[in-house]
Amino acid sequence: MLPLLLIEPLVRAALVEDLGRAGDITTAAVVPQHIQAEAILVARQPGTICGLDLAATAFHLVDPGLRFSPSLRDSARVEAGDVIARIGGPARGILTGERVALNFLGHLSGIATATRGIADKIAHTNCRVTCTRKTTPGLRAVEKYAVRCGGGANHRFGLDDAILIKDNHIAIAGGLRAALVRARAHAGHLVKIEVEVDALSQLEEAVSIGVDAVLLDNMTPAEVFEAVRIVAGRAITEASGGITLQTAQDFAETGVDLISVGWITHSAFTLDIGLDI
Amino acid sequence: MLPLLLIEPLVRAALVEDLGRAGDITTAAVVPQHIQAEAILVARQPGTICGLDLAATAFHLVDPGLRFSPSLRDSARVEAGDVIARIGGPARGILTGERVALNFLGHLSGIATATRGIADKIAHTNCRVTCTRKTTPGLRAVEKYAVRCGGGANHRFGLDDAILIKDNHIAIAGGLRAALVRARAHAGHLVKIEVEVDALSQLEEAVSIGVDAVLLDNMTPAEVFEAVRIVAGRAITEASGGITLQTAQDFAETGVDLISVGWITHSAFTLDIGLDI
Amino acid sequence: MLPLLLIEPLVRAALVEDLGRAGDITTAAVVPQHIQAEAILVARQPGTICGLDLAATAFHLVDPGLRFSPSLRDSARVEAGDVIARIGGPARGILTGERVALNFLGHLSGIATATRGIADKIAHTNCRVTCTRKTTPGLRAVEKYAVRCGGGANHRFGLDDAILIKDNHIAIAGGLRAALVRARAHAGHLVKIEVEVDALSQLEEAVSIGVDAVLLDNMTPAEVFEAVRIVAGRAITEASGGITLQTAQDFAETGVDLISVGWITHSAFTLDIGLDI
Amino acid sequence: MLPLLLIEPLVRAALVEDLGRAGDITTAAVVPQHIQAEAILVARQPGTICGLDLAATAFHLVDPGLRFSPSLRDSARVEAGDVIARIGGPARGILTGERVALNFLGHLSGIATATRGIADKIAHTNCRVTCTRKTTPGLRAVEKYAVRCGGGANHRFGLDDAILIKDNHIAIAGGLRAALVRARAHAGHLVKIEVEVDALSQLEEAVSIGVDAVLLDNMTPAEVFEAVRIVAGRAITEASGGITLQTAQDFAETGVDLISVGWITHSAFTLDIGLDI
Amino acid sequence: MLPLLLIEPLVRAALVEDLGRAGDITTAAVVPQHIQAEAILVARQPGTICGLDLAATAFHLVDPGLRFSPSLRDSARVEAGDVIARIGGPARGILTGERVALNFLGHLSGIATATRGIADKIAHTNCRVTCTRKTTPGLRAVEKYAVRCGGGANHRFGLDDAILIKDNHIAIAGGLRAALVRARAHAGHLVKIEVEVDALSQLEEAVSIGVDAVLLDNMTPAEVFEAVRIVAGRAITEASGGITLQTAQDFAETGVDLISVGWITHSAFTLDIGLDI
Amino acid sequence: MLPLLLIEPLVRAALVEDLGRAGDITTAAVVPQHIQAEAILVARQPGTICGLDLAATAFHLVDPGLRFSPSLRDSARVEAGDVIARIGGPARGILTGERVALNFLGHLSGIATATRGIADKIAHTNCRVTCTRKTTPGLRAVEKYAVRCGGGANHRFGLDDAILIKDNHIAIAGGLRAALVRARAHAGHLVKIEVEVDALSQLEEAVSIGVDAVLLDNMTPAEVFEAVRIVAGRAITEASGGITLQTAQDFAETGVDLISVGWITHSAFTLDIGLDI
Repeated sequence: MLPLLLIEPLVRAALVEDLGRAGDITTAAVVPQHIQAEAILVARQPGTICGLDLAATAFHLVDPGLRFSPSLRDSARVEAGDVIARIGGPARGILTGERVALNFLGHLSGIATATRGIADKIAHTNCRVTCTRKTTPGLRAVEKYAVRCGGGANHRFGLDDAILIKDNHIAIAGGLRAALVRARAHAGHLVKIEVEVDALSQLEEAVSIGVDAVLLDNMTPAEVFEAVRIVAGRAITEASGGITLQTAQDFAETGVDLISVGWITHSAFTLDIGLDI
Repeated sequence: MLPLLLIEPLVRAALVEDLGRAGDITTAAVVPQHIQAEAILVARQPGTICGLDLAATAFHLVDPGLRFSPSLRDSARVEAGDVIARIGGPARGILTGERVALNFLGHLSGIATATRGIADKIAHTNCRVTCTRKTTPGLRAVEKYAVRCGGGANHRFGLDDAILIKDNHIAIAGGLRAALVRARAHAGHLVKIEVEVDALSQLEEAVSIGVDAVLLDNMTPAEVFEAVRIVAGRAITEASGGITLQTAQDFAETGVDLISVGWITHSAFTLDIGLDI
Repeated sequence: MLPLLLIEPLVRAALVEDLGRAGDITTAAVVPQHIQAEAILVARQPGTICGLDLAATAFHLVDPGLRFSPSLRDSARVEAGDVIARIGGPARGILTGERVALNFLGHLSGIATATRGIADKIAHTNCRVTCTRKTTPGLRAVEKYAVRCGGGANHRFGLDDAILIKDNHIAIAGGLRAALVRARAHAGHLVKIEVEVDALSQLEEAVSIGVDAVLLDNMTPAEVFEAVRIVAGRAITEASGGITLQTAQDFAETGVDLISVGWITHSAFTLDIGLDI
Repeated sequence: MLPLLLIEPLVRAALVEDLGRAGDITTAAVVPQHIQAEAILVARQPGTICGLDLAATAFHLVDPGLRFSPSLRDSARVEAGDVIARIGGPARGILTGERVALNFLGHLSGIATATRGIADKIAHTNCRVTCTRKTTPGLRAVEKYAVRCGGGANHRFGLDDAILIKDNHIAIAGGLRAALVRARAHAGHLVKIEVEVDALSQLEEAVSIGVDAVLLDNMTPAEVFEAVRIVAGRAITEASGGITLQTAQDFAETGVDLISVGWITHSAFTLDIGLDI
Repeated sequence: MLPLLLIEPLVRAALVEDLGRAGDITTAAVVPQHIQAEAILVARQPGTICGLDLAATAFHLVDPGLRFSPSLRDSARVEAGDVIARIGGPARGILTGERVALNFLGHLSGIATATRGIADKIAHTNCRVTCTRKTTPGLRAVEKYAVRCGGGANHRFGLDDAILIKDNHIAIAGGLRAALVRARAHAGHLVKIEVEVDALSQLEEAVSIGVDAVLLDNMTPAEVFEAVRIVAGRAITEASGGITLQTAQDFAETGVDLISVGWITHSAFTLDIGLDI
Repeated sequence: MLPLLLIEPLVRAALVEDLGRAGDITTAAVVPQHIQAEAILVARQPGTICGLDLAATAFHLVDPGLRFSPSLRDSARVEAGDVIARIGGPARGILTGERVALNFLGHLSGIATATRGIADKIAHTNCRVTCTRKTTPGLRAVEKYAVRCGGGANHRFGLDDAILIKDNHIAIAGGLRAALVRARAHAGHLVKIEVEVDALSQLEEAVSIGVDAVLLDNMTPAEVFEAVRIVAGRAITEASGGITLQTAQDFAETGVDLISVGWITHSAFTLDIGLDI
């Protein structure tokens, strides 16, 4: 559950974006103010739900008189037809808040569902699926939360909470050793260091200098298997690059600790959720 | 081209989201301040580009000393391997701005590419593809712009710039006629009115009362064809509901003016674009 | 009624502007904290009220313990001496919130009253009075709302919700036809197009190319009458330019659909409203 | 001259209010990007100019490539037909920025002109005209500046920069003496204290307790004359309440130090200024 | 007591600064959601308390379900071990809000305590201790409030609420007389003028031209005594420059009205306050 | 060096706080607009400088025409009398920006100097001094940067970038083991876990379960020495609680990796820096 202090500004901004300068002119014109209504949020396809607090906040900000009663909790799996929440109160508020609530709920549930898809494929291993910084601008905190709701683990939240030395850093710094030595000199005692390794030949050097994690980039499952053997528990191992729902299992069974997948945040389908009155 | 006044706050917020409180600690530790670099943005798959101004703004905000030189313009089609832009200047700035620039560029190019895909399928007709309000919270203006770059047309930007009477409005208002009469009484002279029609039986009534457009929801191409015949040019016709890349042509060939597709904004894949130094 | 999401930030900003860094130092010094008071808002001159929600929000933000009970609703006409609302609770809050509440209420009621003045003059016709974009920076949404409370209709809310081609656009575009053709090619299907016509000779061309509305600028009532005859219902007609409370009726009786008046928003007198304890 | 740090956010917000989500769709559709233009801002009626920096900032924010060359400075008097400034550069930017620039310039020049009108009437006395806190929400700083440009003096900028004890404060505090004693105990050494006096009988008490200024509310010129005699230089004297352009001179000639007038900020007419290309 | 409108944004920003993008990950991981707790805020050293409203707001914003019950009021003196407030409710909220609440409370109580230290030393005189503009960026309003809670008086809140002519102004303006004449011509009737005097020889000139206050900068107590004699009640006198807890009494006993001390805001120790569960 | 994207909003807000609504009324009244000046920032006492970019930004935001030329870089040590930077350009801008520039520079240099004091005392050991989350609300990022400039290391930047299990967490979670097990299950692979240990008896358990760091709270140097021996390199060791400039060396010589000190951020004296024209 994310703190309301972080999600309220997002929802408020989304509502203001939708209301524009004149507000919901259709509802104002067509729906009398006194009419009450009951509505349900219904899944139109199977998936994993995420974003109930954001949907609740959307309706609450539009009209504090609306009651939002979730039927389940974030992370729950649903089938097509399952009721996700009930909303009751002034009809105008339900109609005005509907789109923003659904936009958040569908987007985040889509991410949770995509993550869940991979997590299920690798559930028999000790490997976990993790996200990247390839998130939608402005929505990183909630998208990372959706990954957790789908059974995934979180990678860095930004450029500032861990050191991740990539190929470009190494090239510019003048080699892996130079980069790592500088990183270790600068890192605070609670900051972990991960280094990207594109070839098995770099791996022993990286681990022997001392890193918290190695990012095995664009390797085959066989190469990852070999890399895990070389590392031998001296660092966390993460496989990355082009991993799909189909190949996830092969990677996970190599014994690697994590597989990281960008598309669960940047290219997940929206989960189809409807509002019925 | 969107005004800088609208995109600069988005890019700034995305950078602050990524920088967090401590900034890019990897680059600060590993890359000496004086090093200059040249980088290129390269398409890794075919598509339609959108978001160059946002990428340029990202690098400019990180370091005004960076030069960003696009090789093409928004709306351009690219093949895998095509250079999209060149960035030159302090290496630190390139590395720090990379992810935010790519997140915008990939996301918006993905929308443009998805839209282009449909637009190409229906190019032989007078029908156009249009978007919906199912956009990512906070990014509506730029996503709508991406739709235009992909050859699509824009639907409403929000709840306030046109009246769109949907099934729920009609139900609550007590029927189509009541809803339309109220809408016409309230609408300013520059506000158009569109009404959702779920069955052909409602269509003649709607058009005879007078509307600017009719939304033909969840109809088959055959039903849409019949609807277009009934409307007979008295209103703009828009088909909506479950239209895919495969079925777009069938709908377009009915003579309908517009097909609206939610997934080009809410579920488009990110276009794969890389930064090479 | 405007959504609270849109008016709350305005009222909050106005209060912070008035409170400065040290708050209401007079009240803090002079009025003991425990004192309760009852106050009334009273019209000191006849007019049309607008802004009750903003006044209520001002007192509520200063002290949630204050009760604000309006005696009437926005759009109501008042005579001098009429009670508009009652406020009860801690005296400090009433005194601190008074000025901001009155500044909004007086300003918006002034606009509503000015609009009402014209609307009454033309009530026997089918013509309506409409506003312009000549609004006070920052207050467009609420000023447009005040126009509606005064019986007027709203023109564009901004540069983005309709196309209005003015003389300068036509000159730069190379003529009326060129401008209109470009506009029709770019406009979304829910965007209306209005074109300014300074001479009757341009009118037939404009209407025959196809526009939603024509802006008849700086014409005499006789010219407007002739223009309405030429248009013959093929477009909405709007007369504009130097229309006063005295000449409004002459214009309205030409059969024109709308008269637009900038001064109802940019030069309306504030309605005199007082707070009596 | 106001600091750019204070006016830039105002202008930026006004532009964003006008641009909405889609920007200036008329100009984008109708005016080719490469066209350059020259425009002039011209006074359409006589008055006193105020707001050139805000107008310049509006054009600069829309397009930094625009050149804004004022022909005169804030506080200058103009006749109908006088050129106020020249703007050159991309035609699109001129058309997009025009309305916001004119809205600020017209509104503030209107206030300056109204103030100048009174200032001229009382120029032969030592009396000055001053404003109140009856300003447009959000624009207090610039409206107070406009008053100075019109030859007026500024009253309090907010609730926090001086103590002004009004009738309601006195009533609640239990009398003038009690209120003044409390105020003097709380006021910092750089905070002045002014007290409203509704009857001459209170005046001697107020002055003898010690105040920096007395606000003579709703008195006739004869009463003000008598009040000035009683005060005899022991405090600054300010007349207030219903003072008009016609009666200003009578009040000023009583020897009072200041006359305060709310309508120069809350009910001034906009000065008519046009932009010709 | 400061208005909630001014302190809420400060507390909200501080919480968001502490929560970052992922929130309180320790508490989320370690503390079950249903656990309730009771906590007390306890002084660990003697001092004067300031900031209870900010602490209450911090806990309230983290979880509106938390109860915050202060045992005393701002300005109260405490001994080590005294309970300042009790907080009850969900354990998670207490742990998440603790640091921000304590950071405000400790910082402001430190300022109040430092001020109180001087105020006590000079309590037998008519002299008061006052603060400067040497405050922590962003916290001026609350730090000035802390000075009041410690028995001090407030100097200017900013560059805009009084005129304070310093040595650099005099040098640039071409002398004391020139500076003062210009200042008096520009100052509104509720704006006081204070002038810095570095040598007794300037003092008579300043007072005879007419100022509200003189700032006696970097003088010895003997010089201040002489200055007070020269001024002879014609202006408020303020001693400034290097005044310590040890020398405060010597200055105060000269008869000077105020001693201003920068370090009570910029270099006060934080008061040690703990939260015990 | 911190990114301008993070410091510019801080400096802008501080300037707006100081300018208030009317700006620098002293300078506007007293200093003619055309006067140019040269000024120097001079250290009035020995110390370590931090904040030059913030000072430069302050002057730049007040007037982009000002030139700011630092004579040294952040982290440099200065003696009393050393010139820190030169500022040239319009005199008004120098006077208006002075206080905000000095407030940042003095505050951050004070923190750097305090940190440097401890860092020098322990320079002969492998121990480093680190900060806490006891920072001034709103200034955490820059205060943490000042600690680095003083030769210190940074602890957590917020609640979200590392797990730190304190005594209250352990008590509520039902013991050290329960807390640690939960923490390890939730932590992302780049998140470190530190646990507070108040007694040596808990230490072996903590280390054997597996933690990245142990916080040895309120122990004597002798106890810390013993703790370091027990940990034997299996975790990072941090001593905390009541460490002063006098006792820092004793703690550092125990072999502990870090000593954390709250007062270097929350109670450091401001470094005395002056601006001479």
